[in-house]
Amino acid sequence: MSEAWSLHSQLERDTTSVGDLALSRVLAINDADYPWLILVPRRQGIVEIADLAAADAARLMEEIVLASRALKAVTACDKLNVAAIGNVVPQLHVHIVGRRKDDPLWPKPVWGRTPARPGEVAAFGWFVAAVRQALPVGPSA
Amino acid sequence: MSEAWSLHSQLERDTTSVGDLALSRVLAINDADYPWLILVPRRQGIVEIADLAAADAARLMEEIVLASRALKAVTACDKLNVAAIGNVVPQLHVHIVGRRKDDPLWPKPVWGRTPARPGEVAAFGWFVAAVRQALPVGPSA
Repeated sequence: MSEAWSLHSQLERDTTSVGDLALSRVLAINDADYPWLILVPRRQGIVEIADLAAADAARLMEEIVLASRALKAVTACDKLNVAAIGNVVPQLHVHIVGRRKDDPLWPKPVWGRTPARPGEVAAFGWFVAAVRQALPVGPSA
Repeated sequence: MSEAWSLHSQLERDTTSVGDLALSRVLAINDADYPWLILVPRRQGIVEIADLAAADAARLMEEIVLASRALKAVTACDKLNVAAIGNVVPQLHVHIVGRRKDDPLWPKPVWGRTPARPGEVAAFGWFVAAVRQALPVGPSA
């Protein structure tokens, strides 16, 4: 953990930063169909949840709970889908996706599809602002 | 938490019990292509990770780490995929799936496909026994 952490270039390209929690950078994907957050622990070289130090793993769970509650509060989604997959982008990142029982893919998972259908920029801006307000985030370092 | 917990009937039908950790029942799916564990916190009426009491959420993370390491030790998989989806079976359950870079679906996720292709019963028995030995599980209550 002496090496400096930086966000993987693909996550950088595909997301907007919401801000930083104590451990994780919070990112948002502009997906017209699914409100979608990603938590990225700011720890260099970590691929699996099981690679984290115990205190970081505990903190990640706290941040999953915070982000889940914020997403639910902001979107009134019916279900949260939470996953650490990382088969394409190896830097550990946790997806937190809000689902509705009338969304296009329900009840299938959202992963492994073709790219997101981006929503209207203004609507996404409101979403990011609402999540930022619902979470105790500071600015991304 | 006064109400008695019981395993959801679909999880009961589709899996074999490995044993109980402090919080979660550990289940295994007989899938010929993917070594597959499921953790089910033994708490009645919980749907989302964010519904858990803070101490239970912390314990769930510890058990995700334990099960991830056991699965990796037993299978030498290249990547772990961890997810709480629950769009079909609402009882909170966490999938922990071992992936190989030459497996049939790589790098796509395994969820939302047609049912598992069951492997040979004897091989699955060895897998369950190995996981049981790699985890500090007691018998399922």
